[in-house]
Amino acid sequence: MDRARMEAFSDGVFAVAITLLVVNLAVPKHGGPPIVHQLSAAWPSFVAYLISFLTIGIIWVNHHALVTNIAVVDRTLLFLNLLLLMFVVTIPFSTAMMADFLTAGGRDAQVATALYALDFELMSLCFAAVFEWTLREDARLHIPVPESARWAVRRRFGAGLLPYAVAIGLAFLSPYVALALTGLVAVYYAFEETPRRARPDGG
Amino acid sequence: MDRARMEAFSDGVFAVAITLLVVNLAVPKHGGPPIVHQLSAAWPSFVAYLISFLTIGIIWVNHHALVTNIAVVDRTLLFLNLLLLMFVVTIPFSTAMMADFLTAGGRDAQVATALYALDFELMSLCFAAVFEWTLREDARLHIPVPESARWAVRRRFGAGLLPYAVAIGLAFLSPYVALALTGLVAVYYAFEETPRRARPDGG
Amino acid sequence: MDRARMEAFSDGVFAVAITLLVVNLAVPKHGGPPIVHQLSAAWPSFVAYLISFLTIGIIWVNHHALVTNIAVVDRTLLFLNLLLLMFVVTIPFSTAMMADFLTAGGRDAQVATALYALDFELMSLCFAAVFEWTLREDARLHIPVPESARWAVRRRFGAGLLPYAVAIGLAFLSPYVALALTGLVAVYYAFEETPRRARPDGG
Amino acid sequence: MDRARMEAFSDGVFAVAITLLVVNLAVPKHGGPPIVHQLSAAWPSFVAYLISFLTIGIIWVNHHALVTNIAVVDRTLLFLNLLLLMFVVTIPFSTAMMADFLTAGGRDAQVATALYALDFELMSLCFAAVFEWTLREDARLHIPVPESARWAVRRRFGAGLLPYAVAIGLAFLSPYVALALTGLVAVYYAFEETPRRARPDGG
Repeated sequence: MDRARMEAFSDGVFAVAITLLVVNLAVPKHGGPPIVHQLSAAWPSFVAYLISFLTIGIIWVNHHALVTNIAVVDRTLLFLNLLLLMFVVTIPFSTAMMADFLTAGGRDAQVATALYALDFELMSLCFAAVFEWTLREDARLHIPVPESARWAVRRRFGAGLLPYAVAIGLAFLSPYVALALTGLVAVYYAFEETPRRARPDGG
Repeated sequence: MDRARMEAFSDGVFAVAITLLVVNLAVPKHGGPPIVHQLSAAWPSFVAYLISFLTIGIIWVNHHALVTNIAVVDRTLLFLNLLLLMFVVTIPFSTAMMADFLTAGGRDAQVATALYALDFELMSLCFAAVFEWTLREDARLHIPVPESARWAVRRRFGAGLLPYAVAIGLAFLSPYVALALTGLVAVYYAFEETPRRARPDGG
Repeated sequence: MDRARMEAFSDGVFAVAITLLVVNLAVPKHGGPPIVHQLSAAWPSFVAYLISFLTIGIIWVNHHALVTNIAVVDRTLLFLNLLLLMFVVTIPFSTAMMADFLTAGGRDAQVATALYALDFELMSLCFAAVFEWTLREDARLHIPVPESARWAVRRRFGAGLLPYAVAIGLAFLSPYVALALTGLVAVYYAFEETPRRARPDGG
Repeated sequence: MDRARMEAFSDGVFAVAITLLVVNLAVPKHGGPPIVHQLSAAWPSFVAYLISFLTIGIIWVNHHALVTNIAVVDRTLLFLNLLLLMFVVTIPFSTAMMADFLTAGGRDAQVATALYALDFELMSLCFAAVFEWTLREDARLHIPVPESARWAVRRRFGAGLLPYAVAIGLAFLSPYVALALTGLVAVYYAFEETPRRARPDGG
């Protein structure tokens, strides 16, 4: 079972999921308030779109960096990857829900934002699980990750685990702060150094 | 007519179909009951999403294992594959229908669940047909399947045929039990050994 | 500009278009008439789905057979291919429209069915245009098609042109007969010999 | 991080985005005015579909021409590409909005058309940014673009920047003229010579 087709399928799912985000953007309706008012009232949709788009994009970039080192694709890996994709595919759902409830305030806005961060947390957990599985036997990797560098790579692939967990809790204090935190994770990853460059220093 | 493009097209269809499942998830509506109530009332959607996602994912894994051994892609194979994809693509439809009617009870819940299992049954029949066609002449296979191992592979690729047929009948007694059975098939496949490993023992 | 990426993009568009067909299938609504009545009333949707799915599938198969022989992908070819894809992508639209109006009878049913056949006709015209363009200079082909065999290949790639044109006219006499004719073209292609096999006889 | 998977992901996003355009086409509703009236009343949808389809198609063609010369895919390039895709994915949104408001007239039609052109402008800016980034170090390119030819390539890849900016302004005078201008850019690109051919003359 080769890597290429797992990549192709994953790429396809990432591409469709990232594009479906736009289906949930609130298209202003002709006959209602002026278009500018409708668009500005729907700002959470656009912020949510931006964060979710970047997050899926980054997960795709990291997924690529992760999978490119895998030599042997076994059944466990395929199912961990499938689980990861399952939480990627639900992002358009949790994004639409969060964007719809955010400005409503109250308990519902809190729950919707917590579920949004939870989706990212579960996706990150699956990502970490895929990574740990590829470490189990070095023979599975084209390029074995030296023990000394593993934590650098773990930090990279797992960097979202803690902030997303914090965001789930924060959502019940302030959904806006929780949302900002999920956005910060995306920004962090966008500017973070890749492990490929980090490895020579770490190993 | 080469295998690579049939794989690419199939991967694309699998990826879109598995992602479209989420489009039918009931997004809670702002202004209705509390979000938690709406989500818990929609539990059949989430169970249906989970089962259908895993089932399409598994069919994709098996499809990969099947196609990777094919040397010659002829016109019959292309159309059997097309027929298989036709039933894959209808899964978001039958999933949405089942999820909507399941808790309604009565005859409609039974019919909707039976049709859901029927979709899986027809997909499995096409899958078995593709497999049997590739056996017709060994020259079509890169790695010919020895006669002694064929039943092991048949068991793998055909394992859903009987339980799905049972689920169709069971749906008219209890839609919930029928649904559980379709979920069990997905779990069975997730933990089942691959034929690649089974072959040395079987042959 | 290489063939591989044109194939990948076309495959993606074919895969999404064929999967989007299911989005327009009329999902029975909970609370209305019994599910069986709703499904049987929506039979034109299912027939339309079947015909459109097979037609897109066949065009994909033929597209593959056509493109696989092309050595040089120039700008004209890319735009002819883009035009072809444009009419493929509108098939879910014309299918949904035809299925919705077919049983309404009257002028609207005729127009909707004629437009459905027109979409197929325009797609076939683009397909024929792509083929003729690849013939202009033999250097563009990996395997030049001998003059004597060209008509056999033309017959294959252009077989839909006449019946689709007839179907457009027939739609104004009987939409059902016109629909049946578009279905027959799909069946014809499914059982037709490939030019690869025909070539040795023809050339 | 290799070029092939960036291409595959981009191709997937382009393919889904171009196909999603059709989802926003106004399907005539059974029971309303005659189908011909409904279709002719929805002409802005069809014009918008045509322009957006061609524009995404052309960006895909150009994207291919651009990426095919890249040897090293670094993190910055991946994120510039992601940003580009983000504006591609919003095209079905801005297209649907423009088509819905165009015939309404007044300020809303102006804003909707200006936003439509703005989406194309931002997409073109990202495209130009990707191109400029690949020029920074020649080592990043398989085929270095000679200094003398750079402006020819810049003209090609940046040809939309000015007319799209003009269209944004024009939209507030006449949305129809602004829309025509975006269509002209698509036609210009369709007939424009490729830099591959231009290079020997330019260099």
